[in-house]
Amino acid sequence: MFPTTHRQVLLASRPHGIPQTEHFRVVEAPVPELQAGQFLVRNQFLSVEPAMRGWVNAAANYSDPVQVGEVMRSFAAGVVVASRHPGYAEGDAVMGMLGWQEYAVSDGAGIRRKVLEKDLPLSLSLGVLGINGVTAYFALTDVAQPRPGDTVVVSTAAGAVGSAVGQIAAIMGCRTVGIAGGAAKTRLCTDAFGFDAAVDYKASCFAESLAAACPHGVDVYHDNTGGSVSDAVLPLINKRALIVVCGTASVASWDPWPTGPRVERHLLNKAARMEGFLVWDYEHRYEEAVARLAGWVRSGRLKYREEVLSGIAQAPDAIAGLYRGENLGKRVIHLPE
Amino acid sequence: MFPTTHRQVLLASRPHGIPQTEHFRVVEAPVPELQAGQFLVRNQFLSVEPAMRGWVNAAANYSDPVQVGEVMRSFAAGVVVASRHPGYAEGDAVMGMLGWQEYAVSDGAGIRRKVLEKDLPLSLSLGVLGINGVTAYFALTDVAQPRPGDTVVVSTAAGAVGSAVGQIAAIMGCRTVGIAGGAAKTRLCTDAFGFDAAVDYKASCFAESLAAACPHGVDVYHDNTGGSVSDAVLPLINKRALIVVCGTASVASWDPWPTGPRVERHLLNKAARMEGFLVWDYEHRYEEAVARLAGWVRSGRLKYREEVLSGIAQAPDAIAGLYRGENLGKRVIHLPE
Repeated sequence: MFPTTHRQVLLASRPHGIPQTEHFRVVEAPVPELQAGQFLVRNQFLSVEPAMRGWVNAAANYSDPVQVGEVMRSFAAGVVVASRHPGYAEGDAVMGMLGWQEYAVSDGAGIRRKVLEKDLPLSLSLGVLGINGVTAYFALTDVAQPRPGDTVVVSTAAGAVGSAVGQIAAIMGCRTVGIAGGAAKTRLCTDAFGFDAAVDYKASCFAESLAAACPHGVDVYHDNTGGSVSDAVLPLINKRALIVVCGTASVASWDPWPTGPRVERHLLNKAARMEGFLVWDYEHRYEEAVARLAGWVRSGRLKYREEVLSGIAQAPDAIAGLYRGENLGKRVIHLPE
Repeated sequence: MFPTTHRQVLLASRPHGIPQTEHFRVVEAPVPELQAGQFLVRNQFLSVEPAMRGWVNAAANYSDPVQVGEVMRSFAAGVVVASRHPGYAEGDAVMGMLGWQEYAVSDGAGIRRKVLEKDLPLSLSLGVLGINGVTAYFALTDVAQPRPGDTVVVSTAAGAVGSAVGQIAAIMGCRTVGIAGGAAKTRLCTDAFGFDAAVDYKASCFAESLAAACPHGVDVYHDNTGGSVSDAVLPLINKRALIVVCGTASVASWDPWPTGPRVERHLLNKAARMEGFLVWDYEHRYEEAVARLAGWVRSGRLKYREEVLSGIAQAPDAIAGLYRGENLGKRVIHLPE
């Protein structure tokens, strides 16, 4: 029914900054025997996301670092193929911290949820109906809380989180301005995801173009990048603007700690707020978000892009590729039967 | 009853950074005739505060800059000595934007309030019962909202705002840590204002001392300084910490815009919030704060220090002196009869 060995991607050494191919090692390992209270998942999709950079770095972060020699921590979605756990049956679709591996043994602790949207692709539970969509939903509706007519600026706007933020902001009646890198991505923002405007941060006239795209200033900035991209947004904020810090993708390393233009004067002059967002704080409300998001996906109001890599051998370079900006859409790795 | 001429302090030239003596000029000017709807105030106390630096700088700020040749904008407290205004009678004590001058004509527009606390010194309406106290009250109780047991760190803790923040935080059941410059001020924090600990930011071991004074991390940081003082606080913040940006006293100039360690990663890792506070946004609730503050002053729970300079000739150097850190307590200028 399933093999005795499978492939895993281990953290081979600790990267300084963005993890590259050489920081991982693909190994063949036995599929463990199930103990009572455990079940076996065959992973169908492995997630690849920017936050994984933080998970492998030694610096104190919002989660403990993955240890060298361990299976790379990752969300994955799959199907239960054997179970000695009363809560999980063969055939259940699940999503959780199952790691970069073909099979995963679980006692349920790492499972985020059973995937109930059987009418939608399983991979969506890693993207628009997963952490990415849930992040976008709560960061916007719970923290930023824009009003209709507000200008909402989103960085990495063509990405899995950013594209959802922009579309939910549009549903909320906001004017949306996406920031993305390169013409292909800015086009994706306006054409596929319906942003009112999109600005290329790689263009030499980025700051001017951004200002021109925000003639009434910026009321909400959903920040997935930090760094120099954000430095161009801060001078444009309006009174009582809200900056949700959701990621720092444009900062290659925090060791040594980078410097940039000070933000305190912008915040003071505008009585503005800058707030970090961790989706982990919303675990208890996860299903609420997924239900809303799934409804919008079904009605066509929430569009998504996926980039599906095939085979676990693609994993070691996959995070580095995100930071090279080569993906168009949520990156997942499909593990064929 | 009152003279035909009086002295005014004009902005003589626009400073680049902190205004110095040479940026002001003391002139003799006629006391204007009162028109219908106007009244004349004899200023008894002129206010001196760090924010006045911003009022004379050309850079866009939260208020329009004082024009060269104009009377220096300032809060002042005084008594109505003549009135052709139905709402103000001779003998009324008033506080408002009356400027650095001995007499001020008003139609009521610049008046903040009539001073009702006749049992307390009039000068307090410029300090602990004025903008400083009101700032401390709302920044702490409305924005930061600490819980009992929280560690509240305050910069410029011996100053007019900081000392009030620390004492109100103590009233709220918090552990309070003051940051101030030099041994005299840190002693003032603990001995006069009851901070649980005080740390000297001028000491070489500042960051280590601050960490030692905050063994359970920092839940609230009331930031009056920004800059390098704040850079030492950010690494100590706890989950969901609140940083209220109330001033940027430690940053000498914003032109060119200074750089410093990036804050976005701290905010993200801790899901923390950094928010600018402008007391102007609380004008409609001013009396609510003054009533509370006056009660605490009367009961001895809220202590204050004033440094009273005598005579309008002291004004031109008074702001620069604040930034030299030479004052112990709220700086006001008394104008004797």
